[in-house]
Amino acid sequence: MSWIIEEKGYKKDNVELNGNKFLLGNGYMGYRGTLEEFEKGQLVACNLLGVYDKVGDKWREPVNAPNGFYTGLSCDQTTLGTLNSETPEHSQWLDIKSGLHSRRSVFSAPEGNRIEVESQRFLGLFNVHLMCMKYSIKAANKCNIEIKTGIDGEVWDINGPHLTQLKPRAKGEQLVIDAATGELGCKVSVAESMAFAGEAGVEMNQQIVAEDKKILRKVTFKAQPGQVYTFFKYVSVYTGNDGVEDPSASAEADCLNAKTTGYDELSARNTAEWGKRWKISDVKISGDDTAQLALRYSIYHLLSIAPAHSDKASIPARGLSGQVYKGAIFWDTEMFMLPFFLYTNPDIARNLMRYRVHTLDGARRKAVEYGYRGAYYAWESQDTGDDACTHFNVTDVFTGRPMRTYFRDKQIHISTDVVYGIWQYFSMTGDESILLEGGAEVILECARFLMSYAYFKKDKNRYEILDVTGPDEYHERVNNNAFTNKMVKNTLEVAGKTLKLLKEKHAAVCSELVNRLGYEPELDILNEMNELLYIPQPDGNSLVIEQFDGYHRLEDISLKELKSRIIDPNEYLGGGNGIAATTKILKQADTVLMLNLFKDRYSYEVKKANWEYYEPRTEHGSSLSPCVYALLATDIGNPEWAYKYFLKTATIDLTGESKQYAGTIYIGGTHPAANGGAWMAAILGFAGVSCSGSTGIINPRLPAAWDSLEFNLVLGGQIFGVAIDKSSVTLHSEEGNTADFIFYIAGQPVSCKPEQSISVNYN
Amino acid sequence: MSWIIEEKGYKKDNVELNGNKFLLGNGYMGYRGTLEEFEKGQLVACNLLGVYDKVGDKWREPVNAPNGFYTGLSCDQTTLGTLNSETPEHSQWLDIKSGLHSRRSVFSAPEGNRIEVESQRFLGLFNVHLMCMKYSIKAANKCNIEIKTGIDGEVWDINGPHLTQLKPRAKGEQLVIDAATGELGCKVSVAESMAFAGEAGVEMNQQIVAEDKKILRKVTFKAQPGQVYTFFKYVSVYTGNDGVEDPSASAEADCLNAKTTGYDELSARNTAEWGKRWKISDVKISGDDTAQLALRYSIYHLLSIAPAHSDKASIPARGLSGQVYKGAIFWDTEMFMLPFFLYTNPDIARNLMRYRVHTLDGARRKAVEYGYRGAYYAWESQDTGDDACTHFNVTDVFTGRPMRTYFRDKQIHISTDVVYGIWQYFSMTGDESILLEGGAEVILECARFLMSYAYFKKDKNRYEILDVTGPDEYHERVNNNAFTNKMVKNTLEVAGKTLKLLKEKHAAVCSELVNRLGYEPELDILNEMNELLYIPQPDGNSLVIEQFDGYHRLEDISLKELKSRIIDPNEYLGGGNGIAATTKILKQADTVLMLNLFKDRYSYEVKKANWEYYEPRTEHGSSLSPCVYALLATDIGNPEWAYKYFLKTATIDLTGESKQYAGTIYIGGTHPAANGGAWMAAILGFAGVSCSGSTGIINPRLPAAWDSLEFNLVLGGQIFGVAIDKSSVTLHSEEGNTADFIFYIAGQPVSCKPEQSISVNYN
Repeated sequence: MSWIIEEKGYKKDNVELNGNKFLLGNGYMGYRGTLEEFEKGQLVACNLLGVYDKVGDKWREPVNAPNGFYTGLSCDQTTLGTLNSETPEHSQWLDIKSGLHSRRSVFSAPEGNRIEVESQRFLGLFNVHLMCMKYSIKAANKCNIEIKTGIDGEVWDINGPHLTQLKPRAKGEQLVIDAATGELGCKVSVAESMAFAGEAGVEMNQQIVAEDKKILRKVTFKAQPGQVYTFFKYVSVYTGNDGVEDPSASAEADCLNAKTTGYDELSARNTAEWGKRWKISDVKISGDDTAQLALRYSIYHLLSIAPAHSDKASIPARGLSGQVYKGAIFWDTEMFMLPFFLYTNPDIARNLMRYRVHTLDGARRKAVEYGYRGAYYAWESQDTGDDACTHFNVTDVFTGRPMRTYFRDKQIHISTDVVYGIWQYFSMTGDESILLEGGAEVILECARFLMSYAYFKKDKNRYEILDVTGPDEYHERVNNNAFTNKMVKNTLEVAGKTLKLLKEKHAAVCSELVNRLGYEPELDILNEMNELLYIPQPDGNSLVIEQFDGYHRLEDISLKELKSRIIDPNEYLGGGNGIAATTKILKQADTVLMLNLFKDRYSYEVKKANWEYYEPRTEHGSSLSPCVYALLATDIGNPEWAYKYFLKTATIDLTGESKQYAGTIYIGGTHPAANGGAWMAAILGFAGVSCSGSTGIINPRLPAAWDSLEFNLVLGGQIFGVAIDKSSVTLHSEEGNTADFIFYIAGQPVSCKPEQSISVNYN
Repeated sequence: MSWIIEEKGYKKDNVELNGNKFLLGNGYMGYRGTLEEFEKGQLVACNLLGVYDKVGDKWREPVNAPNGFYTGLSCDQTTLGTLNSETPEHSQWLDIKSGLHSRRSVFSAPEGNRIEVESQRFLGLFNVHLMCMKYSIKAANKCNIEIKTGIDGEVWDINGPHLTQLKPRAKGEQLVIDAATGELGCKVSVAESMAFAGEAGVEMNQQIVAEDKKILRKVTFKAQPGQVYTFFKYVSVYTGNDGVEDPSASAEADCLNAKTTGYDELSARNTAEWGKRWKISDVKISGDDTAQLALRYSIYHLLSIAPAHSDKASIPARGLSGQVYKGAIFWDTEMFMLPFFLYTNPDIARNLMRYRVHTLDGARRKAVEYGYRGAYYAWESQDTGDDACTHFNVTDVFTGRPMRTYFRDKQIHISTDVVYGIWQYFSMTGDESILLEGGAEVILECARFLMSYAYFKKDKNRYEILDVTGPDEYHERVNNNAFTNKMVKNTLEVAGKTLKLLKEKHAAVCSELVNRLGYEPELDILNEMNELLYIPQPDGNSLVIEQFDGYHRLEDISLKELKSRIIDPNEYLGGGNGIAATTKILKQADTVLMLNLFKDRYSYEVKKANWEYYEPRTEHGSSLSPCVYALLATDIGNPEWAYKYFLKTATIDLTGESKQYAGTIYIGGTHPAANGGAWMAAILGFAGVSCSGSTGIINPRLPAAWDSLEFNLVLGGQIFGVAIDKSSVTLHSEEGNTADFIFYIAGQPVSCKPEQSISVNYN
């Protein structure tokens, strides 16, 4: 049963967490794991990717569509449901293999009656506009049942309402809500149809009730004891971003089509689509059921939110679980999610990187805003690439005042992360089109931004990168952050390689680009800065790389001591007066992340020394942190050190054990970067996979708890099955592969022919 | 009566403020304006200049000597005094002409008796170790009086106790407390003698009582109705810093000598000394009694704390009024107090600057600590020149936590201020010895520090000064603060001039210095940086000089709006989460100070535009601020704009209307920088005085309220009397002057011969 996530018994306090835990998604929208009778108070949301809106001077955030699944229930004039009735039996579960959400509840009804409800739902993978639901009712005793079901336009909004001119209407049996966003007038239409299963065979009374923001049908009938009454709902969502002429008409038509096809057929089709995804993406762990379920659940989330249908949007930091973090795209995508897609579905990886090409102009505007040249990517990126991050991104719990933070203006590594991502994609796939279709321009403009940001220290004859915030956001505005400086250097190197490649293979493109960008004067600076950029080095004795200038002068206290100083559980530990800011305690992996990204350039001793130095000083205040420690721990041959971090990152959305507040702001939701981190820890960490494009590398170091690990890799456009046990690696070049591919298994070269299986002992 | 500061009626709430308001001082020590019966709870302090001590990990602060003036009083077994009795009549006053503190109180005593007490005291100017007091008692009805008087070693300490091994002892009639500081073992001895006036002629009973930290004599006698009983106290204070072999013996001898001489004679001598000081320093204003008294009172404070006796100490920011601000010397001395001494007593000005020479090694240590070359002067300087300022200089009122501030590490302008001060002294006096005896070394080392601090921005071909805090401390860690950059440039220029002067006139000294400092490699950098240093310029349209990079992007709110956001009256407006930090509101004059210091280099229009722009945005959270606005207002021909700021700066210690808390830390005390600012506003502002060394300039612009202004100037070692009325300036070259001196009166050159008086009309 390593595919089922289940919670038994209704717990009011878990409504918020379960909304995240039981999330459905298809890359186009996410539907929170709420129950059918829930409304906005329970944070019901059908969260749309890439549709943003701003109300007044509140921050811009993604839009939630009207809820086409809403279903209320009464028995003999008494409202039932978890919010109103005793619920002696309750269960909610998610089948992650097929992307199916289910619930079963038994409610106490008047006169000792008991009403049992079962529902199942899914979001279309084969048609991303579609949402389908099945709902059954069974009464213990004869009674009058009333169902109110339709579309509820009263949706959860943090900074809404975003949908204006809500127009509920009925068209025959079909219910529709048309609306438009307030800021940009983007249309949003939801159509819904309903049908009872044939076997009901009972007289029903239907009546349509339109309220201000709702349109519902009231269905009443006399229920017979023990008889199951089942109905289906077909919902379609279209927006003005979808390239259709009339979103409303598309939704109507789509919804009627679905009704014609029928739930069972649609569900089967969807399960098959999920099967295709899992065929490539699944990872099998034997010997450790906890890890197995957690890792699959992590992969489920990544598959649920991948924008397979579009290259105009990328994956928000909280996936499609709501409006938290403004639905914005952070560095999380490039650094924590991209590898999963690169190794299992390069087309989606390409979409994610194309999003950065589409938002280059926003990055240029941000550079100008701060007085720089080139492209300074948004720390929180939405549809246009303009920065959604404010200068006051946290609220001070002690005063209730907005707190000046430096995420937006000082986390310059975002531009280096984008370049790192594009180059990773190119290196793995060899797909030059990513460079030719805007990627090269992104790379050059990011390098240009960094050149305009850098200062030269004459007496030390070096360039320095001053006044930045690195990944460890508890320490703002530092100089020569080792991670940032190294990433800057990487950007300059990648810019150099890009120019060389273009010059050699696409000379006309190259000169057009250099001319258009007026890049000629930058070329000398690029070379000089690449040569003279200061990169903090390991200390001669301790081998520790100082995280930034002056880090070693900070107060060196234990995590326990730091926590003992906390006054308010929601207080932000960074920022102006944050208690971590003056100590060595880090929010998240910083130097260790750098060592992981550039692991081939540092010795075992340096990596070990830094892991051991920084690990006890890391608070893991970010969900991005644990996987990095897991990755570097496996790299230095300590899978057991890695294991606890793997579990932490893989279970974050199962346990709900993550920060829910930064200051007074709710930051709960799913954690796709941690999900990506779980996959990285398993495949890049324990399996020790890496790839240069033309060769694959596998250096297994399984944790003791695991007997074996099986997964697939897409390398050079071909699929390879990999099975690792305690002593050997078995490779299988899948059917349909056409070329030999070279692997190094624990250093031994192996050429794997199409459809061939090879086993190699590794210790 | 423009020489008397008086408060009538006893107000318990004013005890703290009156301690400051009625302060006595002689440059060696300050004695707070407390009453004789007060103890440490009432903040009694005999504050010693230049003696510092540190207890545990609390901050280092100046030491208070045991209180030799302590006098308690009982009548018929009932303790009298403002703390214990009804006090139907009470008056406390200060005669600033003679440095005499007086009080008169009438206390209700048992059985309807009334006891009248009068006292008078002074600190020796002619002998800085001496403190003298006269105390009289008169009873309405016959009664038994008991006086307890002696030395109270229980002194006010913020972070004490500083005096260890307190040894109270009696030696004949004399009482002594010997002690030593805990940190450095610096000896502190206080000796006291007492004598009744001959006319008492009554039988007295004396008994000596030694307690742990006190030694007192109990004197009892039967008082006759209406009879006045007067006694005198002679107290001498010596420390291990005074260059005497045995401070204890010196104090004893000194005290006995004084007793022999007698109070009246000593008092007359002291009044004569004060007369000498006032003869040069007094400023007479006619037509405005408020201004007259306030300005005289300001000058009184400057005269009271000037270290005429030593060049090893300088004037602390709170004068000698206690331990506040750690008794530390700030930039206040160079920028706000020095001009008064330069124009009236250049010897004291020299002492103040010599202090910086003595503390150069501390400045070098600070530079090394932060990774720089040269001399980075202490933001809060004590005896060694090591920085007494901590990285946590304010307490957050909301959490009670120390707040990370950047006074210590980022207010680099302190080194430029020191150089500015030395060069001012040299320019005014032509005294090359200041340069030859260490001043040149200070200048070069400060310039070297700035060269090692600066960064070069290649694409703009300029040096920049990054990450500093300017005078406006509400905005920490800014780039290219106009004030700082200009002061850095001035330092480089002064270093260049110093080298040129030494090379031309003292070649051997010059080459020895350059060799010893290894300064040869710095010379090219000095020239290049001087040429290429970025100085923020007036905006082409508005003429406003942006205070620092990005200032114009801050929230532009009114002072009223800012104040409406204050939650806690003691909250610090700067620092990490300070509410001013994200707005354009300044703590104090910053760009306007720069324009005032370099007023000859900016046009009238630029000065006016900046005054008008910054004035409404200045909170004047520092007492240094108003005088700067007064000075620049007079310079741009608006004495009425200046007048209110003059009054604000001149009355600060009279009204007590100043910030008493920064966060949770008490910062009350006297404000010598504001006192110096009052003098500057009057003389350099309204009288329009400046001086190049060989010529004096007077550009009068009296405020409407003033009929005339009279004062003296010491220029080129000669004394000149200046009298300005509404239309003319009268100069008088004093008796004893030996050379002609050229003045420009409102642009008209006048050569003033010795003993000559000249009148010139100026409008």
